[in-house]
Amino acid sequence: MRGRFISLEGGEGAGKSTQGRALAAALARAGLPVLRTREPGGSAGAEAIRALLLGRGGWDPVAEMTLHFAARREHWASTIAPALQAGIWVVCDRFFDSTLAYQVGGQGAPRETWAALRAATLGEAAPDLTLLLDLPVAAGLARAQARGEVNRYDALGQGFHERVRASFLAQAAEEPARFAVLDATRPAPEVLAAMLEACRQRLGAP
Amino acid sequence: MRGRFISLEGGEGAGKSTQGRALAAALARAGLPVLRTREPGGSAGAEAIRALLLGRGGWDPVAEMTLHFAARREHWASTIAPALQAGIWVVCDRFFDSTLAYQVGGQGAPRETWAALRAATLGEAAPDLTLLLDLPVAAGLARAQARGEVNRYDALGQGFHERVRASFLAQAAEEPARFAVLDATRPAPEVLAAMLEACRQRLGAP
Ligand SMILES: Nc1ncnc2c1ncn2[C@@H]1O[C@H](COP(=O)(O)OP(=O)(O)O)[C@@H](O)[C@H]1O
Ligand SMILES: Nc1ncnc2c1ncn2[C@@H]1O[C@H](COP(=O)(O)OP(=O)(O)O)[C@@H](O)[C@H]1O
Ligand SMILES: [Mg+2]
Ligand SMILES: [Mg+2]
Repeated sequence: MRGRFISLEGGEGAGKSTQGRALAAALARAGLPVLRTREPGGSAGAEAIRALLLGRGGWDPVAEMTLHFAARREHWASTIAPALQAGIWVVCDRFFDSTLAYQVGGQGAPRETWAALRAATLGEAAPDLTLLLDLPVAAGLARAQARGEVNRYDALGQGFHERVRASFLAQAAEEPARFAVLDATRPAPEVLAAMLEACRQRLGAP
Repeated sequence: MRGRFISLEGGEGAGKSTQGRALAAALARAGLPVLRTREPGGSAGAEAIRALLLGRGGWDPVAEMTLHFAARREHWASTIAPALQAGIWVVCDRFFDSTLAYQVGGQGAPRETWAALRAATLGEAAPDLTLLLDLPVAAGLARAQARGEVNRYDALGQGFHERVRASFLAQAAEEPARFAVLDATRPAPEVLAAMLEACRQRLGAP
């Protein structure tokens, strides 16, 4: 049987990486074959594109979005699709919703460009379930700063991150069947329990 | 007044680089401001993508095409469009027709993907004139080998290069107003004269 494709979305410091690890571990303990992966990156070619994207600024906005979809297509074709085919559950840290939130919602690139690139590179492929870890911008940035890693998006300012958060919430409202919105301000074990509950209800996880 | 955008197309060894240099020099001698550039590459970001594309094989075909259009968009937005705006004539070694010939004609990627990526990244932007340097595959490969540079496309075999040539010729037949097909087996000075004649007739070059 085909595996299930679960993406984790949310702003900086929401808990995607730590909770994604915890979710993958919990699903594996429940007996499922699980692969954890991340975007941008997740395969050799896509990681090379990730390095290019993070390594220099000043990209034309449409070129930057096109690079994200090139990496995503490579990641999809060489890692995610074969895993799903093999019956593996895939837990992915960010997918195309992040591009809509960051490049379109945050930076103002045209939504039609996002939709056209998505269709050209992925057709109808999409996550079966998207777990949106939502929390106030200030709380997320405080966590990300405490964690001690800052990338170039972290420095883009409050207004940018507010637009990103609003875009994620609008996406969840547009596609309630795919999205589950979780309150990421709650203690980590409670957030994990809510994620597992969504996997059981929506995907039939054990 | 807006400049003119001239692309040079053709298989390996057709003479795009040497004749492009000669054409740009001749146009400059005639008093035009000229910029010579090339694909993939032609701007800092696009050159970085070029290095990625040429540096490793094994890309998923759609991901590879998406990378070409990411580089092309960056090249267009940061180099070609501003030059045209400033009244400069741009002579570009390869443009999107090469992607149609190599990835779709040669490697069998879907033409709709090419068209969708082109529309998403460039809209209606296109060369004003495309000079197709046409010659038999064996003659071109012999010249490229004599030149002493071989890249990964040069090693793809006769059948591949025949499909590329046929695709270029079919494109020229589909868009006769944009393309001029030149017999690249003729001596270099004659080919250059024919290129300049096309620039005069189609673009009003002096
Ligand atoms: N529910 C939570 N409550 C408190 N701290 C959390 C919670 N989830 C994650 N964290 C912490 O917040 C920081 C950022 O989490 P991380 O998973 O790296 O976020 P993201 O990958 O979304 O940027 C980490 O130090 C992590 O341990
Ligand atoms: N019309 C021509 N006749 C003979 N040799 C040519 C002609 N045009 C180019 N060449 C030679 O053929 C080789 C390949 O030309 P080049 O411009 O590098 O081709 P391309 O850039 O299309 O691969 C070079 O050594 C060049 O000097
Ligand atoms: Mg993270
Ligand atoms: Mg050349």
